[in-house]
Amino acid sequence: MTETPLPVNDLRELRQDLSQRDALKIADELARREPANRAKVFRLLSKEQALAVFLLLDAAHQEELLGGLRDEQVRRLVEELDPDDRARLFDEMPATVVRKLLAGLSPRERHLTAMLLGYPEESAGRIMSPKFVRLVPTMTATEALARVRRRGEEAETIYALPVTDDELRLVGIVELRDLILLEPERTVAEIMRTDTHAVRVDEDQEKVARLIQALDVLALPVVDSEGRLVGMVTVDDAMDVLRDEQEEDLARTGAAEPLGRPYFSASIFDLARSRALWLLMLSVAAILTVNVLSAFEPVLETVVTLALFIPLLIGTGGNAGAQSATTVVRSMAVNEIRAGDILRVVLREGRVGLLLGAMLGVLSLTPVWLFGGPELALVISLTLVTVCTLASLVGSLMPLLARQVGVDPAVVSAPFVTTIVDATGLLVYFLIARAVLGI
Amino acid sequence: MTETPLPVNDLRELRQDLSQRDALKIADELARREPANRAKVFRLLSKEQALAVFLLLDAAHQEELLGGLRDEQVRRLVEELDPDDRARLFDEMPATVVRKLLAGLSPRERHLTAMLLGYPEESAGRIMSPKFVRLVPTMTATEALARVRRRGEEAETIYALPVTDDELRLVGIVELRDLILLEPERTVAEIMRTDTHAVRVDEDQEKVARLIQALDVLALPVVDSEGRLVGMVTVDDAMDVLRDEQEEDLARTGAAEPLGRPYFSASIFDLARSRALWLLMLSVAAILTVNVLSAFEPVLETVVTLALFIPLLIGTGGNAGAQSATTVVRSMAVNEIRAGDILRVVLREGRVGLLLGAMLGVLSLTPVWLFGGPELALVISLTLVTVCTLASLVGSLMPLLARQVGVDPAVVSAPFVTTIVDATGLLVYFLIARAVLGI
Repeated sequence: MTETPLPVNDLRELRQDLSQRDALKIADELARREPANRAKVFRLLSKEQALAVFLLLDAAHQEELLGGLRDEQVRRLVEELDPDDRARLFDEMPATVVRKLLAGLSPRERHLTAMLLGYPEESAGRIMSPKFVRLVPTMTATEALARVRRRGEEAETIYALPVTDDELRLVGIVELRDLILLEPERTVAEIMRTDTHAVRVDEDQEKVARLIQALDVLALPVVDSEGRLVGMVTVDDAMDVLRDEQEEDLARTGAAEPLGRPYFSASIFDLARSRALWLLMLSVAAILTVNVLSAFEPVLETVVTLALFIPLLIGTGGNAGAQSATTVVRSMAVNEIRAGDILRVVLREGRVGLLLGAMLGVLSLTPVWLFGGPELALVISLTLVTVCTLASLVGSLMPLLARQVGVDPAVVSAPFVTTIVDATGLLVYFLIARAVLGI
Repeated sequence: MTETPLPVNDLRELRQDLSQRDALKIADELARREPANRAKVFRLLSKEQALAVFLLLDAAHQEELLGGLRDEQVRRLVEELDPDDRARLFDEMPATVVRKLLAGLSPRERHLTAMLLGYPEESAGRIMSPKFVRLVPTMTATEALARVRRRGEEAETIYALPVTDDELRLVGIVELRDLILLEPERTVAEIMRTDTHAVRVDEDQEKVARLIQALDVLALPVVDSEGRLVGMVTVDDAMDVLRDEQEEDLARTGAAEPLGRPYFSASIFDLARSRALWLLMLSVAAILTVNVLSAFEPVLETVVTLALFIPLLIGTGGNAGAQSATTVVRSMAVNEIRAGDILRVVLREGRVGLLLGAMLGVLSLTPVWLFGGPELALVISLTLVTVCTLASLVGSLMPLLARQVGVDPAVVSAPFVTTIVDATGLLVYFLIARAVLGI
């Protein structure tokens, strides 16, 4: 793939250049541009290219681009989207615009989109495709394939074919692969898998995506509360969900909210906004550390040397806490750690923290002794052991407790844990110092 | 899905219980057990169940389980794996064991596996499937479908069918979906896509996976340096690669190496080992902060109050740095930020840091004034502005520079940035304090 950036000055040259690029490269380039520039380039695309590129863009970009196009073009692009992608786009838009766009759709697309929008956000219902080819168990291979040929054009996937009874209740799944290999007169019932996993339409989208990943399947059927088939979630939608959820976890571990859009398409203000509240809250929480230190000001005045080790000690505690928190958040995300595991996890992490603290405590003894004598060495060493253990306990406990009260564990991961460990670590440090130095 | 844990005591009851569970639930439960317990449960499974469960397990678990089974059973399980999954398993094993297992394979499987193992680690060649159904452009739909029926049983995917010329050079791709809808006498050439993306066999596996995700395709063809088709990478392998890469990024952002195995299957010692080096290196780097503070000990002795704000200031700087670093690492991972963007990114992040620092600087003025007077308020406020700006600059620059020298950007993200910002932040703090307070 060539990495030449698109030229911007000469429009004719640009149009020429665009016609030779594939849609993905154009979509990639668009995502890296300033908004104004983006619309300009998009308008230069041929009708087919515009559609191909549009389908590859993020919902946030789609929304932005539509703002700069003529009504007829907007209608055409929106009509071409799959219902689930359309629902995602509509989520980004004000209700008045959505109403107008819905009104412009063909009746069938309008109906399907409105149905998806009726399901809760982040549920299976929002990411499923309501267009599928349904088989019944008594069909022969020939009949089934004929039906796939007749109805397959429109469906999002025909590689996983749900099988239902007459009341639309899901009874199994047939893979197209098996259907093709089946002799003409054999029936769907003979090859359908009945041990198939199905998800409820109100199931959380991340759980659905993880299930698709764990099972290595191309699609999962979605059923309503009566077990009736309502849609299929496909693997490409699962990948998008996992990407978004992982962006969220990573951003929060780094003390920010996810941007939800490509980096260069976010303004300086967008970036600052995604971080401002976090930074402010953490700074307010850090006032705790000022309070703790104030309480020990007389100790500090007596032995100023103690101040020299404050950043090192709280930094190390913060890192140990971040390690535990990040491990636990990740393991919870992939469902390796579950609600009932709190005690088991906290005990494990506490032992890991103790082990790591003991290592650092022993290693620090000689250098600190040389720097400030045996008593200081003892204080620092004991503090390292205690702080690392404490940090691992807090770091593992906080995400677990967060989930218990319905908060995203990543919200109280590394940065929050660090701030809490800072304050308690200082308390531990000065208590140990006072005891050892006899102040 | 029921969440009842598997009973452990009564073997008969356990066997009974296992026979009613699906493979995914059993695989999930196995992953949460202690190693010894795991082998015991696995041996209770029926032959078919054992295979189904084995295929769903991580390579690390597969390796462990094989150690406790009879040779014949091992041979059978290994023979059933796809060549790419087998290559992944062999990566986990000592060379002597791999040689023995290779010798036990059927000639064809041995040949294919040895071929994959010949490609560099983390390359497309390692995750591709060398079993595919190849079409030629002149085939009619009927001929092509007949070939799919004949050869499809063995291939990992038949949903994306590569088309080659007589010398095996890739010329296009046909989706099975289009092939099925095609009239019997029309040819493959009419429906094949020639603008298809292909990847080189030595391409980095993460890039391949991201391409599959961006294109929403089920498989990508892999070619050698002469453009000859050698395999197909499927979407399920892409998902596994992305999961592993994301685990790596998240772990390193949290100052640890990825475990590469489920949480509960890692021992306390495994956990400590994945973190020890990080913690130690960061603590050694933190000695910088002791040095900076030593240099300013006279200032501290004169105004002990300055010490009270150390954790708050460096904590805030650390958070601002972590925010920038995490955003940049993530945007680099998804290829939104590229090598040529360094200046653009650093300037953006610097402005975001300045904006956030200014916000905190203004908000802190009144409370600090009330706490310690106008001069202290000025010192803290100026330090917050400077430290946040500096932190954002360092936080964005370090991952970008890391990649320039071939180091994973996540390695120098949040924790490393924090440690560096701690030391420079202290320097800034005391220089400002000395200037404002006239010490």
